[in-house]
Amino acid sequence: MADRYANFANSGLGRTVVKRLGLPDPPRLRRYRPGDPVAAGPVLLGAAPGGRLAEPVAKLLENAGVRVAGTGAAGTKHAALIFDATGIADSPGLRALFDFFHPYARDLLPSGRVIVLGTPPGATAGPKEATAQRSLEGLTRSIGKEFGRGVTSQLVYVEPGGEESVESTLRFLLSGRSAYVSGQVIRIGAGAAPAPADWEKPLAGKLALVTGAARGIGASIAAVLARDGAEVIALDVPGAGDALADVANRAKGRALQLDLTAGDAPSRLAGYLAAGPHGGVDIVVHNAGITRDRTIFKMDESRWDSVIGVNLTAPERVNDVLLDQGLIKPGGRIVGVASIAGIAGNRGQTNYATSKAGVIGLVQSTAPLLTGRNITINAVAPGFIETAMTAKMPIGLREAGRRLNSMSQGGLPVDVAETIAWLASPGSATISGNVVRVCGQSLLGA
Amino acid sequence: MADRYANFANSGLGRTVVKRLGLPDPPRLRRYRPGDPVAAGPVLLGAAPGGRLAEPVAKLLENAGVRVAGTGAAGTKHAALIFDATGIADSPGLRALFDFFHPYARDLLPSGRVIVLGTPPGATAGPKEATAQRSLEGLTRSIGKEFGRGVTSQLVYVEPGGEESVESTLRFLLSGRSAYVSGQVIRIGAGAAPAPADWEKPLAGKLALVTGAARGIGASIAAVLARDGAEVIALDVPGAGDALADVANRAKGRALQLDLTAGDAPSRLAGYLAAGPHGGVDIVVHNAGITRDRTIFKMDESRWDSVIGVNLTAPERVNDVLLDQGLIKPGGRIVGVASIAGIAGNRGQTNYATSKAGVIGLVQSTAPLLTGRNITINAVAPGFIETAMTAKMPIGLREAGRRLNSMSQGGLPVDVAETIAWLASPGSATISGNVVRVCGQSLLGA
Repeated sequence: MADRYANFANSGLGRTVVKRLGLPDPPRLRRYRPGDPVAAGPVLLGAAPGGRLAEPVAKLLENAGVRVAGTGAAGTKHAALIFDATGIADSPGLRALFDFFHPYARDLLPSGRVIVLGTPPGATAGPKEATAQRSLEGLTRSIGKEFGRGVTSQLVYVEPGGEESVESTLRFLLSGRSAYVSGQVIRIGAGAAPAPADWEKPLAGKLALVTGAARGIGASIAAVLARDGAEVIALDVPGAGDALADVANRAKGRALQLDLTAGDAPSRLAGYLAAGPHGGVDIVVHNAGITRDRTIFKMDESRWDSVIGVNLTAPERVNDVLLDQGLIKPGGRIVGVASIAGIAGNRGQTNYATSKAGVIGLVQSTAPLLTGRNITINAVAPGFIETAMTAKMPIGLREAGRRLNSMSQGGLPVDVAETIAWLASPGSATISGNVVRVCGQSLLGA
Repeated sequence: MADRYANFANSGLGRTVVKRLGLPDPPRLRRYRPGDPVAAGPVLLGAAPGGRLAEPVAKLLENAGVRVAGTGAAGTKHAALIFDATGIADSPGLRALFDFFHPYARDLLPSGRVIVLGTPPGATAGPKEATAQRSLEGLTRSIGKEFGRGVTSQLVYVEPGGEESVESTLRFLLSGRSAYVSGQVIRIGAGAAPAPADWEKPLAGKLALVTGAARGIGASIAAVLARDGAEVIALDVPGAGDALADVANRAKGRALQLDLTAGDAPSRLAGYLAAGPHGGVDIVVHNAGITRDRTIFKMDESRWDSVIGVNLTAPERVNDVLLDQGLIKPGGRIVGVASIAGIAGNRGQTNYATSKAGVIGLVQSTAPLLTGRNITINAVAPGFIETAMTAKMPIGLREAGRRLNSMSQGGLPVDVAETIAWLASPGSATISGNVVRVCGQSLLGA
């Protein structure tokens, strides 16, 4: 499962060989370890005149122990460049981006962070401002492809009224938790998001259900949610047996064997949760998913039905039952797992891509219905992640998938898990209907 | 400028060499010639039960002289597979897609067409239907990558009430005009779209302004709009001189030399149009664009300012003046030219990608404001198009750009021009706020 080439290229001898031969040079990504500071060094914070986010962001960073530098300190090595672009009201005003990034771009540390804060185009005063704010996406996506060395680049749209709810997102993006998230557009809504009592244990007191938890990405989700303080129910099909028990034990949680495609499974799950000490559940992660690849010429109906059934219909049915019975508690979080294939389509995966595009539809269509209940629903969309599944791919496809992204390497299951943990956090209360790719800014897209 | 490899691979000797050596095998794409029938052969039309589009579509195809086959006629070679998916109300219902495409997928002619008709997720009865309709995108994008041989695949969302307005889009998609458009999602709004008196001359009586018309894509736009019956004003900067005059002459139109970034240029243009025999303009194509590539480390302010100024601010200013003075007539069309770089970002193009992302923002934010005036605004987003600009790219990048798409080749300027002509057509009255890629379903995206 490991990316042996990346390990080699980051070894002493490997570095020399890679450099001499001009081979791809995947940087070693900075990943989060408990106790890490919020940022890996001083952060440069800039703003276009009239912005509404620089001030609250400066305050929250300082409270979080981050050293915030103003512009003018060229030569300092920065862990992040954060730019408040909400003051940009028209296209000539975009010049402020050049003025900020041109002089300081070279001073970013490896695995540095670029974060541009904007206003969602739909929430602006008119088309001039909407156009300029929409332009930001071209900049952040280009920077993600330009900077290399493990630097990530994101655009964070904050609705007016959401200024005090950006902390969970900034902490996630600044940290090594977001090592493999780049080139994304994140939308934070208006309203207040409660800060957790302890940012190291933001999920303390929460009960989390993770489906497909016996292996790979699901096992990592269970582990990360537990690390962040949640009590975890690790669910998988009967037969996952020992592997599932191991995951549950390591997470100090419970194992639950259930085939969610069975007719009565959602209501059995509901009964289990209702009878538990929490009387419901706080976090539901629909991670269970299967592939049954064939071109549509060669596909049979069982491959179609099983993939749609497991990946899309089962999460829909589980949501329905749990929401109808009020078992997802206020402050609840639902997180789906889509895929780049669901965004871009993929040869040999009409069934899988259809199901994963559906997960995006599920999230986007359900989010507005849950706002009043204080429940969010979002999805992550993994790109090439190093798992037993990707290890079995033909070598050409595998190496292309690994290298054709801004990190020049595949991601790890923990990268997906960290992204889910951020969305599950109490501080992410105003983030709903988002689809966040965990793909190292893969070239593939739509 | 030509793709000599594609020409070679489609020659007699070339075919043999390509096959023996396993080289990329770009198909020769079917392109439109005046007088071509609406479809290149019989069309298979299917539907999920309860759909609202199969019936009006069958009628319009028959009126247009297309032979429409029902399911059951396996073995016939079809020019297109059209499926009305509007009846699909939930994820189990997606099975209708498999039932339709699995048996007939092999029977598509080269340069065949796959068109799935759906309901925009936001216009459905609820999340179940929205999810299923959103799923369609995973299918059509996968089919585009799977079928090869110049087959294109699109998803066309038709709002309830737009059933009688699909003809211009179906004619475009079925014909060779859309040779290099694949993997797209097109949205047709509610309301009536007038059929032109003559589908071969849909732009008869219309006055069209094309900026950046002296060369490449702009010259092709002028020619195609003229072929479709429009009177063309070919605009370019002073100095484009002879090339511009040639374009105007070939289009039997007028040449106008004007630098639109100059302070008074938009109002001078307005004066010119107001004084003309049409007393305004029907079609405005903002094609003028420049690149000034550098990484942001190495970029200077003039590269930033000029690219934003020409590609984004100038179209904004021209729109403002023409719209304020009522010079874009009812039934008018504005078409911008974005770029895949504006969608996905690109290394060395922070300025260009920012400007082109802005074009998308301009279209999306302006569209709702113009509905009441019966004016549409849309954009095309070219991928790798064979022009003097792409001919100058380093060979590695050039070949990657050419091959990394579902057509295994670059597009031609005429492919962009045909797409613009479709959006400019009277029959496209209910299409606004769309961004349609002309990229052969390039792998690159966001």
